[in-house]
Amino acid sequence: MPYEVIAWRDDAPRVLDQTLLPHRVEHIRLDDLDAACQAIRTMRVRGAPLIGITAAYALARHALVLRRCGLEPGAVAKAMTEAGAQLVATRPTAVNLEWAVSEVLAACGAAESLEGLAAAALERARSIHEAQVHADAKTARLAAALLEGDGARAVITHCNTGPLATGGCGSALGGVIEAHRRGLVTEVLVDETRPRLQGAHLTSWELGQYRVPHHIVADGAAASLLARHEVAAAFVGADRIAANGDVANKVGTLSLALACRHFAIPFYVVAPLSTVSIETSSGDAIPIEERSAAEVLEVDTVRIAPAGADAYNPAFDVTPAELVTAIVTEAGVLRAPYDAAIRGALASRGA
Amino acid sequence: MPYEVIAWRDDAPRVLDQTLLPHRVEHIRLDDLDAACQAIRTMRVRGAPLIGITAAYALARHALVLRRCGLEPGAVAKAMTEAGAQLVATRPTAVNLEWAVSEVLAACGAAESLEGLAAAALERARSIHEAQVHADAKTARLAAALLEGDGARAVITHCNTGPLATGGCGSALGGVIEAHRRGLVTEVLVDETRPRLQGAHLTSWELGQYRVPHHIVADGAAASLLARHEVAAAFVGADRIAANGDVANKVGTLSLALACRHFAIPFYVVAPLSTVSIETSSGDAIPIEERSAAEVLEVDTVRIAPAGADAYNPAFDVTPAELVTAIVTEAGVLRAPYDAAIRGALASRGA
Repeated sequence: MPYEVIAWRDDAPRVLDQTLLPHRVEHIRLDDLDAACQAIRTMRVRGAPLIGITAAYALARHALVLRRCGLEPGAVAKAMTEAGAQLVATRPTAVNLEWAVSEVLAACGAAESLEGLAAAALERARSIHEAQVHADAKTARLAAALLEGDGARAVITHCNTGPLATGGCGSALGGVIEAHRRGLVTEVLVDETRPRLQGAHLTSWELGQYRVPHHIVADGAAASLLARHEVAAAFVGADRIAANGDVANKVGTLSLALACRHFAIPFYVVAPLSTVSIETSSGDAIPIEERSAAEVLEVDTVRIAPAGADAYNPAFDVTPAELVTAIVTEAGVLRAPYDAAIRGALASRGA
Repeated sequence: MPYEVIAWRDDAPRVLDQTLLPHRVEHIRLDDLDAACQAIRTMRVRGAPLIGITAAYALARHALVLRRCGLEPGAVAKAMTEAGAQLVATRPTAVNLEWAVSEVLAACGAAESLEGLAAAALERARSIHEAQVHADAKTARLAAALLEGDGARAVITHCNTGPLATGGCGSALGGVIEAHRRGLVTEVLVDETRPRLQGAHLTSWELGQYRVPHHIVADGAAASLLARHEVAAAFVGADRIAANGDVANKVGTLSLALACRHFAIPFYVVAPLSTVSIETSSGDAIPIEERSAAEVLEVDTVRIAPAGADAYNPAFDVTPAELVTAIVTEAGVLRAPYDAAIRGALASRGA
């Protein structure tokens, strides 16, 4: 990989500060729980799987900090649980965050000493990260294979789903980069992804690092381009997949899915199984985070609206399962009916 | 009207410089043909009907300038035709521009002296402007009436279609402002309309001037908001309407139309009859202007993309007639089948 997104270094997580991209590449050390929560909330670290890994490492770091405080084992267990709740509260929509936190806390619960607890937390965090790297690689191969036999053409993507989003080789963008490596993709149309511009800021930067030809497009222009370019497929990620296959993802995903349906272009969701929330029966049950109006009213700190104007800023939308051609996971390519396919995939993982 | 968009003052057109909004309200005098072409090309003046009126006044100004040069009548006629072609070339998609230019040139052709030619040009330009003011007022009443009997609710709009777009009271936004005045609209969702941000820059400013409650939304968020808000209808304008009812309008319109269809929300196009191009059989025949990549790669001069990144920037898209609930014009509310309805409306105007 041409850049390091997240690593455990000198007893703490170190992450690439994504709010400075594409203009500056700088890493920050998440020294304590507040720094980690703040980094997730302000989107220095974002992308559902990467948020999970960051939270896992943040708990491991917190265990080290607590060990130095000389607390009783009971107090430490309580403090770890509270820290987990604090991390989970930073972003309500993604499910990997909750999952990663519960995994690390479960590992801690089995430890018999404070030393053991800190070691168990770090071991589980590392294993979550490694599993993501392996799952990403497998998923990318499966996603790229969907383009085989069609001749090389353009694909379109929304938001950012590369290494910056997962800590591995990426989900949807990982598949696109792999497909380009195999000669199956000529170029990528990159939705700029307002309001936070993850497409223009991050996806364009990552594709540049991997030397993949691409053009940025305004989100509203995607449909116009699908009408006139030879686009083979759309690849997007997911922040939460419900048991029926409904997909919560970055706001704007539903518009792209509707445009793909209109122009009969396959619409692929690429995401790790940890994104599936089997307790969430359908998209209606997914909480949609409403973020600050300032993200819409300003672009990179430049005010674009009149004084006194207000904005709505839902961070996600829900694409109904019927608009999704397939869901690509490390357990295989799932197709409708999704409820059965998802249950099967989770069972095969032993979940 | 709380502000002046365009007027003939001291022998020249004077227009509100829309590139300075919403932060500054300044007018500029279009002293010669180059200034007018430049103002249209750089979108100091924009909106299909207003571009037409501006071009008409610009030709009237050009006739005055030519009169002072002491040319022969034949040379003046040739110079006027060339000036018209230069104006038409500034923006290829809107059809009102071409129509207004041909109307003024026809009026000039009937004049018997250079004095008479300049007077005829100005008279025709004024009558085009006045006709727009009257047509807008009638269209706004028809559009507002579509919301009667439903109780006051939110509506959504894209780009800018207020007085700033037409030189009258506006097309789609004129209808929305009129509906709010009648108590039929509680609030307006305003697509920010990337890349040029006409929603955030202009529509929000105009709604503020008219004291209409509104929220700006990222274009990609519209579908998410339609899913969760009580939205009565979408109102958009048009840059060109084909004979079959296909509508070319600001890029992003098609996405909004697809979202409205998905959520069973009426999608209304509001535009003067001068927007109809009966020679254009369908949307496939409409030329789509590709504008500078810089409009996407920068927001109000702030660079949002990595160095070296490129963008596609189609300025318009085509919404197929089957997604349009009705087309509201000064000649009435047209419904499918549009080819017959459009022919009838043009015939009633005597076109």
